[in-house]
Amino acid sequence: MREKVKVAIMGFGTVGTGTYKILTENRELIVNQVGADIEVVKILVRDINKKRQIEAPEYLFTSDADDILENPEIDIVVELMGGLEPAYSYIMKALERGKHVVTANKEVMAKKGRDILTKADENSLRLCFEASVCGGVPIIRALKNSLATDRITKIMGIVNGTTNYILTKMSQEGSEYEEALREAQALGYAEADPTADVEGYDAAYKMAILSSIGFHSKVDIDKVKREGISKVSQLDIEYGNELGWTIKLLGIAQDVEGKLDISVSPVMLPKQHPLAGVMGVNNAVFINSEAVGELMFYGPGAGQMATGNSVAADIMAIAKQIVMGNKMQSNCSCFTDKDYVEELKAGYYTRMNVINKPGVLAKIAAVFGNFGVSIESVLQKKTEGDKAEIVWITAKVGESSFRKAIEAIESLDVVNSISSIIRVENN
Amino acid sequence: MREKVKVAIMGFGTVGTGTYKILTENRELIVNQVGADIEVVKILVRDINKKRQIEAPEYLFTSDADDILENPEIDIVVELMGGLEPAYSYIMKALERGKHVVTANKEVMAKKGRDILTKADENSLRLCFEASVCGGVPIIRALKNSLATDRITKIMGIVNGTTNYILTKMSQEGSEYEEALREAQALGYAEADPTADVEGYDAAYKMAILSSIGFHSKVDIDKVKREGISKVSQLDIEYGNELGWTIKLLGIAQDVEGKLDISVSPVMLPKQHPLAGVMGVNNAVFINSEAVGELMFYGPGAGQMATGNSVAADIMAIAKQIVMGNKMQSNCSCFTDKDYVEELKAGYYTRMNVINKPGVLAKIAAVFGNFGVSIESVLQKKTEGDKAEIVWITAKVGESSFRKAIEAIESLDVVNSISSIIRVENN
Repeated sequence: MREKVKVAIMGFGTVGTGTYKILTENRELIVNQVGADIEVVKILVRDINKKRQIEAPEYLFTSDADDILENPEIDIVVELMGGLEPAYSYIMKALERGKHVVTANKEVMAKKGRDILTKADENSLRLCFEASVCGGVPIIRALKNSLATDRITKIMGIVNGTTNYILTKMSQEGSEYEEALREAQALGYAEADPTADVEGYDAAYKMAILSSIGFHSKVDIDKVKREGISKVSQLDIEYGNELGWTIKLLGIAQDVEGKLDISVSPVMLPKQHPLAGVMGVNNAVFINSEAVGELMFYGPGAGQMATGNSVAADIMAIAKQIVMGNKMQSNCSCFTDKDYVEELKAGYYTRMNVINKPGVLAKIAAVFGNFGVSIESVLQKKTEGDKAEIVWITAKVGESSFRKAIEAIESLDVVNSISSIIRVENN
Repeated sequence: MREKVKVAIMGFGTVGTGTYKILTENRELIVNQVGADIEVVKILVRDINKKRQIEAPEYLFTSDADDILENPEIDIVVELMGGLEPAYSYIMKALERGKHVVTANKEVMAKKGRDILTKADENSLRLCFEASVCGGVPIIRALKNSLATDRITKIMGIVNGTTNYILTKMSQEGSEYEEALREAQALGYAEADPTADVEGYDAAYKMAILSSIGFHSKVDIDKVKREGISKVSQLDIEYGNELGWTIKLLGIAQDVEGKLDISVSPVMLPKQHPLAGVMGVNNAVFINSEAVGELMFYGPGAGQMATGNSVAADIMAIAKQIVMGNKMQSNCSCFTDKDYVEELKAGYYTRMNVINKPGVLAKIAAVFGNFGVSIESVLQKKTEGDKAEIVWITAKVGESSFRKAIEAIESLDVVNSISSIIRVENN
C-alpha cells in the first residue's frame, strides 16, 4: 500500500492558500480516512520571492510549470490559476503525463470541459472540478453521483455571490445599484472592474457547467443567454416587493423535451421560493427532477477555506483510489449533444413611462393583444404631472412575440420609455 | 469488462418498488454512465402471490432469502425491509458471502452501523446507506466525501417529514396537535400508530447516523436525547410567532471540544433561519463546519421515487467500481469513540400558569436567580380571573440548573402549572 500521495498546486492565491491550509491542518483527519498521507510537494507561483500570507517551506515554490508537469513523482496536479490559458494547456499536459487533475477553473471547464474530460477518460485518470461552481457547495458531486440515476428537468441557481450581495443590499436597504456595487467593492466582494460578475459572465460559465452535467450534454457557452444586474433599479425592487416577488440574478437551465434553454438574468421570484431567502454572498442551486422532485443545496459561493475545502475533498477522493491501486475514470457525463429550445415561453414584468391621459392603458393593452401577449395584471403606479408609470405582468409567452409587442409599444406616441423588462418565474 | 452487474432487492414495498422502477425506466441512462447493465435478478417478498402495483416478471420473486444470499451470481444486495431483524442478519450474511450492500434501513445503521461497516471493510466491500436518512436528499454522500476534509461542529436537521408536516399545519392553520395529526394520518403521512415519528424515535436514528459520520465517532443511540412533539400546543406556536420564532422538531448534534451532544426535540428557531422555511413533509440538514461555514441540503424526506433514487444512485456508484474491477472499501468514518457532553448549555422558553396577584412575578424570578438562571425576557400573557400566563425566555444555562429551578418554581403555591418547556436555538 502507498504511504504517500503527492500533490502539486499550480496557483497560490486565495483558494490555493486555503487548500494548502486544509491539507496541512487536517492532515491527521485525512490520513485516517485515506490510509496514506497527502503531501504537497510543489507549488507553482509567478514570483517565488513574493511575501505570502502563509508559512510554507521555501523549497516547495517554483515558477517553472515543468517542475510539476514533468515530475513523474506527482500524482495529482491541482490547477488554481484561473483564466483559460495557460491553465488549459497545463491541465491537458498534466493529463498526458498521467496525472490526475483537480481544478477550480470555471472558465476552462465551461469552454473546454468535454475535451478535458475525454482526455482524462482516455488516460484512465480522474479530473475533478467541484470548486469551479458555487465555492463550498458540493453541487457537482451531487449532480454526478446522487442524481445520475434521475432525470433532471430544471436547474435554477444563485451562482454568483457578488451580484446576490448587491441585490440583497438593494432589497434590504433601499439603495440603488451603483451604491450597493461600491459597497461590495469596498468589502472586497466585487472587483475594481466588476464586469465579469455584474454582467453575468461568471454565472454563465457556472450554468454551462451545471447544465452539461445535469442534462448529459455538451453545452456551448455562447448559447447561454446572459443579462446582468446593472440595469436593475430600486423602483423595480419595490414594485416586485408589492407583488410578493424578490429580484435575483438567476441562472435557469431547462431540458424541455430534449432541448436545452440556459439563461442568466435578473428574475422576479416569489418570496416564498426557497431561493428567494438566499441572502448576501451565499449561493444556492435548486433542482427539479423526475424522481426526487425538488432539491436545494445552499452555502458559501466563495471564500478561501470554503472553496479550499471543495478542492481538498476532490484531492482526497482521488487519493483514496490511488491508495487502493484502483483504475479511474472521469466519466464525462455530457455524452449527448442536445439542441437548444428555439423559443422559450416565460412571463415578463415590464415597467414603462407613459403620458398620463385617458385611453393610454387601452392603447397599450391593444398592442399586447395584437401580438398575442396575455396580460395577467396591470398596475398604474406613481403619476407625476403628465407622466405616469405602468407595470404590466404578462402570462407565459414566446420571447419574440413579447419583444415585438414591446417594440411596437415603444413606438407609440403615448409611451415615453420602456424602463425595464424582467423575467418572472412563478413556479 | 463486465457486461452486467446483478442486483437483488430484499423487500418490495414503497422504496423497493421505486428503486426497481428507476433501474428499469432509466436503464439506458444508467448504462451510458456505468458502462454495463444493472440487472435486478431476484426480489425477496413475504408472499410471492400478492398482487403488486408494478409489473415485474414472475420469476424474479422469491420468499426464500437464501435464494439471494447464497446465490454466487449476485453482486449487490439491496436491503429495503426495515426493522432490526432479520435485516441485520441478512446484511451481515450478504457481506460474509462477498456481496456489496445498499440499505435504506435507519434502525440497523443507527444501532449496528459500525459492526456492519467494519465487516464490509474486512471483506473489501462497499456498504452504502444514503436512503437511510432524509429520503431523496443526498446528505450522506456530502458528509462522507465533500465534508470529509473539514471539521464539522454542528449538525441541525429537520429529518422527519411527518412531524414537520404536523408542525407546519399547526403553524399555518392554527390547528391543535391532535387535529393536525389526524390530517397527516388521513393523507398517509403519519401511521395509524404514529409513535415512531411523533415521539422522535425516527429522527433520533437519523441524527445518530449523521453524527457518527460527521463527527467520526461511534454514536450510542441511547445517548441521543429524545423528546417528541405531542406536547406542543397552539399557544406556544402563537407566542413563538410573536417572538419571531418558529417551532420545529429539530435534531441538533454538536461536537463541543471533542465531546458530543445529540438531541431531538421541539425547538424555537428564529424565522429568518434557513431551516425555519422548510415546510410540510420536506427535510433539510444544516451544517456548521470550520472551513466551509454554513451549508444546507433541502429536499423530500420520503417518497417512493425520491428515496428509490437514493438507493439507485448507491447501486450505480458500486456498479461503476465493479465494472472497472476495482478494490472497494466502505471507509467506516466513525474511527473514534467520543465521549458525551455532560451538560449542554441552552436557552429555554417556558410557559407557566400562575395565580394572578401582585408579587408573583418577583417570586418566580427570585427562584430562577437562586439557581443561577438568567432571564432574557418575560411576557405576561392572557389573564383570566385569578389566573395568568407567564412566558419566560432564559439566557443559555446548564440544563440541570434550569430543571432544578423549574422544579422549585412548580412547588411554589402561586404556580398552578408549568405548561411547556421548549429549547431556544438562537444561533
